[in-house]
Amino acid sequence: MGSTLLSELATEILVPVCAVVGIIFSLVQWFIVSRVRLTHERPPSSNSDKKNGFNDYLIEEEEGINDQSVVAKCADIQSAISEGATSFLFTEYQYVGVFMIAFAILIFVFLGSVEGFSTKGQACTYDQQKMCKPALATAAFSTVSFLLGAITSVLSGFLGMKIATYANARTTLEARKSVGKAFIVAFRSGAVMGFLLAANGLLVLFIAINLFKLYYGDDWEGLFEAITGYGLGGSSMALFGRVGGGIYTKAADVGADLVGKVERNIPEDDPRNPAVIADNVGDNVGDIAGMGSDLFGSYAESSCAALVVASISSFGINHEFTSMLYPLLISSIGILVCLITTLFATDFFEVKAVKEIEPSLKKQLIISTVLMTVGIAIVSWIGLPSSFTIYNFGAQKVVKNWQLFLCVAVGLWAGLIIGFVTEYYTSNAYSPVQDVADSCRTGAATNVIFGLALGYKSVIIPIFAIAVSIFVSFSFAAMYGIAVAALGMLSTIATGLAIDAYGPISDNAGGIAEMAGMSHRIRERTDALDAAGNTTAAIGKGFAIGSAALVSLALFGAFVSRAGITTVDVLTPKVFIGLIVGAMLPYWFSAMTMKSVGSAALKMVEEVRRQFNTIPGLMEGTTKPDYATCVKISTDASIKEMIPPGALVMLTPLIVGIFFGVETLSGVLAGSLVSGVQAGASEHARTLGPKGSEPHKAAVIGDTIGDPLKDTSGPSLNILIKLMAVESLVFAPFFATHGGLLFKIF
Amino acid sequence: MGSTLLSELATEILVPVCAVVGIIFSLVQWFIVSRVRLTHERPPSSNSDKKNGFNDYLIEEEEGINDQSVVAKCADIQSAISEGATSFLFTEYQYVGVFMIAFAILIFVFLGSVEGFSTKGQACTYDQQKMCKPALATAAFSTVSFLLGAITSVLSGFLGMKIATYANARTTLEARKSVGKAFIVAFRSGAVMGFLLAANGLLVLFIAINLFKLYYGDDWEGLFEAITGYGLGGSSMALFGRVGGGIYTKAADVGADLVGKVERNIPEDDPRNPAVIADNVGDNVGDIAGMGSDLFGSYAESSCAALVVASISSFGINHEFTSMLYPLLISSIGILVCLITTLFATDFFEVKAVKEIEPSLKKQLIISTVLMTVGIAIVSWIGLPSSFTIYNFGAQKVVKNWQLFLCVAVGLWAGLIIGFVTEYYTSNAYSPVQDVADSCRTGAATNVIFGLALGYKSVIIPIFAIAVSIFVSFSFAAMYGIAVAALGMLSTIATGLAIDAYGPISDNAGGIAEMAGMSHRIRERTDALDAAGNTTAAIGKGFAIGSAALVSLALFGAFVSRAGITTVDVLTPKVFIGLIVGAMLPYWFSAMTMKSVGSAALKMVEEVRRQFNTIPGLMEGTTKPDYATCVKISTDASIKEMIPPGALVMLTPLIVGIFFGVETLSGVLAGSLVSGVQAGASEHARTLGPKGSEPHKAAVIGDTIGDPLKDTSGPSLNILIKLMAVESLVFAPFFATHGGLLFKIF
Repeated sequence: MGSTLLSELATEILVPVCAVVGIIFSLVQWFIVSRVRLTHERPPSSNSDKKNGFNDYLIEEEEGINDQSVVAKCADIQSAISEGATSFLFTEYQYVGVFMIAFAILIFVFLGSVEGFSTKGQACTYDQQKMCKPALATAAFSTVSFLLGAITSVLSGFLGMKIATYANARTTLEARKSVGKAFIVAFRSGAVMGFLLAANGLLVLFIAINLFKLYYGDDWEGLFEAITGYGLGGSSMALFGRVGGGIYTKAADVGADLVGKVERNIPEDDPRNPAVIADNVGDNVGDIAGMGSDLFGSYAESSCAALVVASISSFGINHEFTSMLYPLLISSIGILVCLITTLFATDFFEVKAVKEIEPSLKKQLIISTVLMTVGIAIVSWIGLPSSFTIYNFGAQKVVKNWQLFLCVAVGLWAGLIIGFVTEYYTSNAYSPVQDVADSCRTGAATNVIFGLALGYKSVIIPIFAIAVSIFVSFSFAAMYGIAVAALGMLSTIATGLAIDAYGPISDNAGGIAEMAGMSHRIRERTDALDAAGNTTAAIGKGFAIGSAALVSLALFGAFVSRAGITTVDVLTPKVFIGLIVGAMLPYWFSAMTMKSVGSAALKMVEEVRRQFNTIPGLMEGTTKPDYATCVKISTDASIKEMIPPGALVMLTPLIVGIFFGVETLSGVLAGSLVSGVQAGASEHARTLGPKGSEPHKAAVIGDTIGDPLKDTSGPSLNILIKLMAVESLVFAPFFATHGGLLFKIF
Repeated sequence: MGSTLLSELATEILVPVCAVVGIIFSLVQWFIVSRVRLTHERPPSSNSDKKNGFNDYLIEEEEGINDQSVVAKCADIQSAISEGATSFLFTEYQYVGVFMIAFAILIFVFLGSVEGFSTKGQACTYDQQKMCKPALATAAFSTVSFLLGAITSVLSGFLGMKIATYANARTTLEARKSVGKAFIVAFRSGAVMGFLLAANGLLVLFIAINLFKLYYGDDWEGLFEAITGYGLGGSSMALFGRVGGGIYTKAADVGADLVGKVERNIPEDDPRNPAVIADNVGDNVGDIAGMGSDLFGSYAESSCAALVVASISSFGINHEFTSMLYPLLISSIGILVCLITTLFATDFFEVKAVKEIEPSLKKQLIISTVLMTVGIAIVSWIGLPSSFTIYNFGAQKVVKNWQLFLCVAVGLWAGLIIGFVTEYYTSNAYSPVQDVADSCRTGAATNVIFGLALGYKSVIIPIFAIAVSIFVSFSFAAMYGIAVAALGMLSTIATGLAIDAYGPISDNAGGIAEMAGMSHRIRERTDALDAAGNTTAAIGKGFAIGSAALVSLALFGAFVSRAGITTVDVLTPKVFIGLIVGAMLPYWFSAMTMKSVGSAALKMVEEVRRQFNTIPGLMEGTTKPDYATCVKISTDASIKEMIPPGALVMLTPLIVGIFFGVETLSGVLAGSLVSGVQAGASEHARTLGPKGSEPHKAAVIGDTIGDPLKDTSGPSLNILIKLMAVESLVFAPFFATHGGLLFKIF
């Protein structure tokens, strides 16, 4: 056991500095995006020359369209989308806010009751010789960090949405110049969100740890136990964000597609379609805000899982602060690595043609992974002693720093593999999607059968990649290894989010172009961006589910340790029934969310049909449809429908823990983990991609069926498995003391 | 510990007598069915009076149609279906036969190699003080019982198909008289199959045990270890039967529906549709032969699982033969109970109207369950000592006879609950299916979304029922409890199969009526029978998956015991990676089978389209289509496509066991079990039922998508989880000695 090369002071400086650098970088990107003007007055210099200040003519200028009115229209549509999204999010936050406060009280009461609300210190859980802070303090600080996590999550989602709705019209305008310029605006905006979120999450966590330390002092066990509330808060918020946003976006999308594209034969995003604004709002609240919250939750949870295990390992016992903050150091370096990576897309190389977009995004993944491998090596070298011990279910296991490096690296590279496999199965450049498109020849039914089969198939290699990561990291460093592997996969989160957010922004840009009545050539450019974006969105979901599997396992391990269980034996009835019921939960949850999307879409379809049938001149484009009613249907439906599935996830660990105890709860966690990973991964991959292929209607039906799977049920399943695990961890002291009522009675 | 009321001699008489009674009963039923004449000459007595020897006029006679030519047509169509089915099954058995022989050799070589093919006796596995028969003997006898199981399975499937194709045209002819008469013919034919299969399986097993005992003498451990081969043989055969038959039937069905119903707007089973004969053949080889093999496999495996655990419990150690054969006693009483139950449908009450069909079938379930509860109580009272010990992972657990009664009863009643829940979710008498039908208003996409959601939802209660059964039986009598709970669920198999087989027979009867150009009123009657049959088929699948979960768990427990593992701890990397990969296998398997159905259906669609487009006069009904080519397409596709999924299931345990060892294999089994149960149960329930509702096309598309899920992938998943477990059990001695190569090397 030795000390680290990096001193405690250096760590205390390095982490916040990296976070601040990330924030500054994102502000710079925002500034660059904001130079695309969305106002009527032109910059005076360009007013005089015909080329609008650029080297090329704009498409409007070539085609002789007055670009002043186009800009004005874009600005109008943008503000409509932004308003719709803001109003939905505020409504959502109001409802969820009430829930959060109630849940915070629950946390305080349950955890406080562990020692009967005593203010006296107690013997430490893992070292009965020492005295630790009272359970009441853990209750209070857990509640605070829970709220902190929830607020940070809200902030992440909300800022993401704001940036996206700020960028979408600007992307449209840039598309008039060239596809490359549009790409850079969309990508920069994605980067704003990615860096802001990563840096913000890191900074809040860092500050919380340092503030809590003022009270906890040397009781690191209690300190980091309380910090896990941060993960729970982030994840609870993410659940509602994902489910609510997912229902919103898909109800609108399905409704718009079924009537518009199938029945009325009008193109996507046609301004005559009454659900078109709701559809575009949906992209921002579902794909952007929901995903932002989701990935922030993953990041917070994997950090918390690693920290809580570290606190009962040699780092925590010997109070080695630098090593203790190793998870935060990885994230700090991750920000710097992603910063350099972003420059490759925005400054070092330029995208000139449509076919360069996908390779350019793929390069982002590769560059960030390669650079990050070096970054991890450095952090592991300077931030860890050459040898240390890790808590391993009752024993301490000796680990070398190069072994921990391998744990992080295996997670990072597994992420890259998952990304590539997902790309292979979802990009129309390869045979799987082409086969599915081909199956449309014989109708919607064969298309869906092929699509479902492809979705199931796409799970195989990612599961092997996850299994290998788990095996390697588990063998080297037990549950700590798993936690840092998850962090490794998420270490390039800023780049991942940039790539991911770029998709919906381009999608929106296309919608705005269509609605503003811009040239078909602009729409073609944004469609090309959007097609690449669909694939990258699938990659993002692949990352999300892969990291969720690792994070949940790490949290599960931490829960088991905290609950004082040493084995989770499948061959005991308590565990096995938990396993089988846990494996059922993702299906129950999916049934709820899919039914919700279906019901909401049904209402939307009827409203859209009603408008087409009753508003004269709508199909001819002489009358404007009633967008607001459609926005309201989506909002109301999603707020109402997000509660039952949310309650299922939040209440299950509490009910199982209280009535059946920690063994059954372990089974439930393991079952939902192994089943949810498959279901989630396969559902997200069911997105097909044969848009525009013929026979078109069959493809649209297939696309519509895939939509709720990939954008509502699938992504929510990551959160389900993570959230149940982190909730169990937070409530572990309570369950260990008061749980298993049913078995105690009988 | 005491002796049993039933003497060993009485047991040796009772079991075969019950089996023979079952066989005689089924022959009587066959005789009654055969009295419906399918030949041109009429019985002389009825030739003279106009009422055809019955009290009512036939529909043909009322409508003035010459019923002689109708009978001749029916006979022709029946023989075409029967020929197609026979030829397919022979082709299938040829291919599978080669595989079975190869696998038999593998079993012999692998198991023989455990002690290096030594002919000397060895120390017993569970009692190192005693000497047991050599491993080579186990290898030889396992191989023999494997082949015996495979042959019995082939026999079960083949006889079932023969009976069904014998009965279908007769059901059509009886439908001319009344719906009640048609119902009784179809139900009696189902009973022929049910009793023949149950009695046959029991008899072969009983004889095998007694013959093996001549060699093994007092080495019951070795004897019942060798007997497990019977389960493996039955299950392997069932896998290929289900997958091959499933692909056959769905390729034909999907192909016929998509072109005939959707594109050409001709009714189901229209003789102008070239795929119509293939479709009807498919019902017999898939739903009848496949299901027969499947349920025989379940029965054989649960008996084997119970026997192998009993052999290392006090029954086996103290050589209490009556108690040892307790599983067979349950099945024997089951045959008697089902016999009485059948009389309620065929003799005590008469179905007079369409709406009495479903209640009558439901009554069968309830009566058999109630009677069987009494039967189990009697068997438990006379066939068990009042107290005994059961092997429980290294220890012996004391169990009372009333506790074991409860284990069997909980399985039996869980089966009933699963049956009722399945009925609720699949019968068009209740709101779930009505909701799905309603969703067709907005098109195929919402229909499929609702259908998928309903399928997921239908899993919830069955899983809880299974969990409760597992908990109760596990708590009372460890793995033996689970095994007898599975037997309890399967104890009324004869009735279950009768109900189940009745569906496809009615379906075929309707097809024959349509093809023979019979009156629309006859078709209406067979359609009513068919609708009830679809629901009962779903119930049958519910039983199959429920019992599969229990059987697999019992086999898993036996495997773990045999492999010398005492805990299967989720918190070890070897187990966890097994768990996550195992949970992925059902998806991989489903991807393969669905893709297979899709590809085969694609070919079928193209062929049917080709015939409609190129054969002049086909649509007008003046020219006959080329049925044979469609039959050939289905045959070729299913033979070719059944091999990869079959290989996946058969090879996985071998590869994992050999390279990764028994711990990882345990994980794989547990993972595939908990994930496969959900996937299977949800897929089988995805069958919707909005047939005939409007808008019709949307419903047909939804139906078509549900078809491969419910009839190919879903039911095969039961077999997947059972087969991998029983295979692991058979090879356990080999894996325990030579397995885990990869970990040994590194």
